Amino acid sequence: MTNATPPAPTNLSPIRIADGTVAILDQALLPFREEWLELHDLEQAAHAIRSMQVRGAPLIGVTAACGVALGLQNDGSDAALEHAVSTLWATRPTAVNLHWALARVRSLLQPVAPAERGRAAWALARQVAEEDAAANRAIGEHGCQLIERLASGGRAVNVMTHCNAGWLATAGYGTALAPIYAAQARGIGLHVYVSETRPRNQGLLTAWELGKAGVPHTLIADNAAGILLQRGAVDMVIVGADRIAANGDVANKVGTYLKGLAAQASSVPFYVAAPCSTVDGQCPSGRDIPIEERDGEEFRVVRGATGDARIAAADEPVGNPAFDVTPAALVSAIITERGVVPPQRVASLLDTSAA
Amino acid sequence: MTNATPPAPTNLSPIRIADGTVAILDQALLPFREEWLELHDLEQAAHAIRSMQVRGAPLIGVTAACGVALGLQNDGSDAALEHAVSTLWATRPTAVNLHWALARVRSLLQPVAPAERGRAAWALARQVAEEDAAANRAIGEHGCQLIERLASGGRAVNVMTHCNAGWLATAGYGTALAPIYAAQARGIGLHVYVSETRPRNQGLLTAWELGKAGVPHTLIADNAAGILLQRGAVDMVIVGADRIAANGDVANKVGTYLKGLAAQASSVPFYVAAPCSTVDGQCPSGRDIPIEERDGEEFRVVRGATGDARIAAADEPVGNPAFDVTPAALVSAIITERGVVPPQRVASLLDTSAA
Repeated sequence: MTNATPPAPTNLSPIRIADGTVAILDQALLPFREEWLELHDLEQAAHAIRSMQVRGAPLIGVTAACGVALGLQNDGSDAALEHAVSTLWATRPTAVNLHWALARVRSLLQPVAPAERGRAAWALARQVAEEDAAANRAIGEHGCQLIERLASGGRAVNVMTHCNAGWLATAGYGTALAPIYAAQARGIGLHVYVSETRPRNQGLLTAWELGKAGVPHTLIADNAAGILLQRGAVDMVIVGADRIAANGDVANKVGTYLKGLAAQASSVPFYVAAPCSTVDGQCPSGRDIPIEERDGEEFRVVRGATGDARIAAADEPVGNPAFDVTPAALVSAIITERGVVPPQRVASLLDTSAA
Repeated sequence: MTNATPPAPTNLSPIRIADGTVAILDQALLPFREEWLELHDLEQAAHAIRSMQVRGAPLIGVTAACGVALGLQNDGSDAALEHAVSTLWATRPTAVNLHWALARVRSLLQPVAPAERGRAAWALARQVAEEDAAANRAIGEHGCQLIERLASGGRAVNVMTHCNAGWLATAGYGTALAPIYAAQARGIGLHVYVSETRPRNQGLLTAWELGKAGVPHTLIADNAAGILLQRGAVDMVIVGADRIAANGDVANKVGTYLKGLAAQASSVPFYVAAPCSTVDGQCPSGRDIPIEERDGEEFRVVRGATGDARIAAADEPVGNPAFDVTPAALVSAIITERGVVPPQRVASLLDTSAA
């Protein structure tokens, strides 16, 4: 409706997959430098996941599928398949999309003749990516309806998000940002509060994405989320997820739980947007989700546009849990490609899974 | 009890006051450089407060008293007194100790003959500082008893704090850290979780203080407070305050409120330590406390040991509220020099005020 609005990023992806090659947008350099990196073998794919050159639960799953294909390029044996799967499986513990993608790829490749596995693996990697983008596009449509309801009278809707769950975190469209892009494409006025997301500052990736798409936004310190919610500056919170337990508890980037508490205290709806591949039916509750503890150097060194700032000595003790768990009771609803459901009903979506 | 423990900082202060001179430890350079800065006139004192070369509500009050003395050094007229008070009054809006100290100094200097005001102002500044240190020492003793109760069986007590409310933030001893130093002096085992406190990273000042005093501690991202409380890693939270309303609502460094929510959700006691000069009997509730919005550059540029990191372009929109309000309902008790009281009863302490 507004002509001045740039187009929403409907076809952007941080990963390019062709038979035999995969290139990633190196997110360890973003938002300061935009560089594509070709991955040549299994170990480079595993390293890209571990070092967060790729990040975001859905994108980790897609990259893992590519990693299996890279691992099978010269050797399609059972041993090579198992080696690729187990190497990638161990890269990061919390995001279940990783294990979901690997289990799926393994089960579909096991019956394939070793000589055919390389080609089949590339086809599967492309399929995982395409399905992810399609799921996220559907998440955008479902989530857009929630935004639209708040946009009555033409006023701009204020959304708060955490970390980056945009197209950078997926094969396309994003999860938490998909409804925002869909709403913008329909001309709904929006403003997004972007939480810095220390210690890795993924909020800067979100600001970068939103800036490219022309979505008005304001960066805030993670600490500022509470007062903004208290003041009524925020109409809804939307975050992504790294793993959703069967009872609806949500593991997501550390700090999400604090936003969940603050949203509930101010009666602001708190939504989690994620594809069904993020739901772990085998995991009864949030207590059963392993939480990755990452290296303290991530905290001690802050990356900048023209150089890094070492804010603490290497021997200064640091605790660096990468995720936390938001109890289902704090989650208003989960937005999936199959619709919007209360967190307690999220496991029911898996019964109709095509996987 | 433990011989290896370094002495607690019982005589450290970030401000040195003598007749006619005042020197401050420049906190804009800490923890990377320890430099003392002499303040020569009223404008330098006002600048030191505005630019956070001095910070922490009690220290701001003490520095303001010194600023008045500097403002009167060559001219003890009523006009000079009013000019000094009004210049300093406008430096920062949230910390009420600033206004408390200025109102007190003004009322005590008004009856003094102009020719005597300079000397009287210095005597008053020293008195404000000495009273602050004495109050904080008493806060330490009262708060220590709360820590001692949790130390049964000789186990270390895990305390979480936010921002810096140590001796750096006061004329001596600190507020939130005073009970920790008192407990350490008694040989009680302690471990402190120190929240980074973006965007100004005052948690690094707290880590620096604790390191100097030999108190075991762990730096965490502000985002990690929730999961640590959820996990039972924290026995108590102690924070300082910039203003406490008559109903017990507490304004403190932005992010305090999120810790209050998370502490309550995990049934962990949440204490506020502050001298009675922080209680604003004229302010009915937290809604009436003005919240300072500071320059976005504080957020966009992260200071480091060997250089700064610009994490966002100068035109990236930033929201930077410096404080938030924790409702009284989230506060277990307020630790003052006159004892430990429920937040709802904090105003009753003012009835016995000697000021």
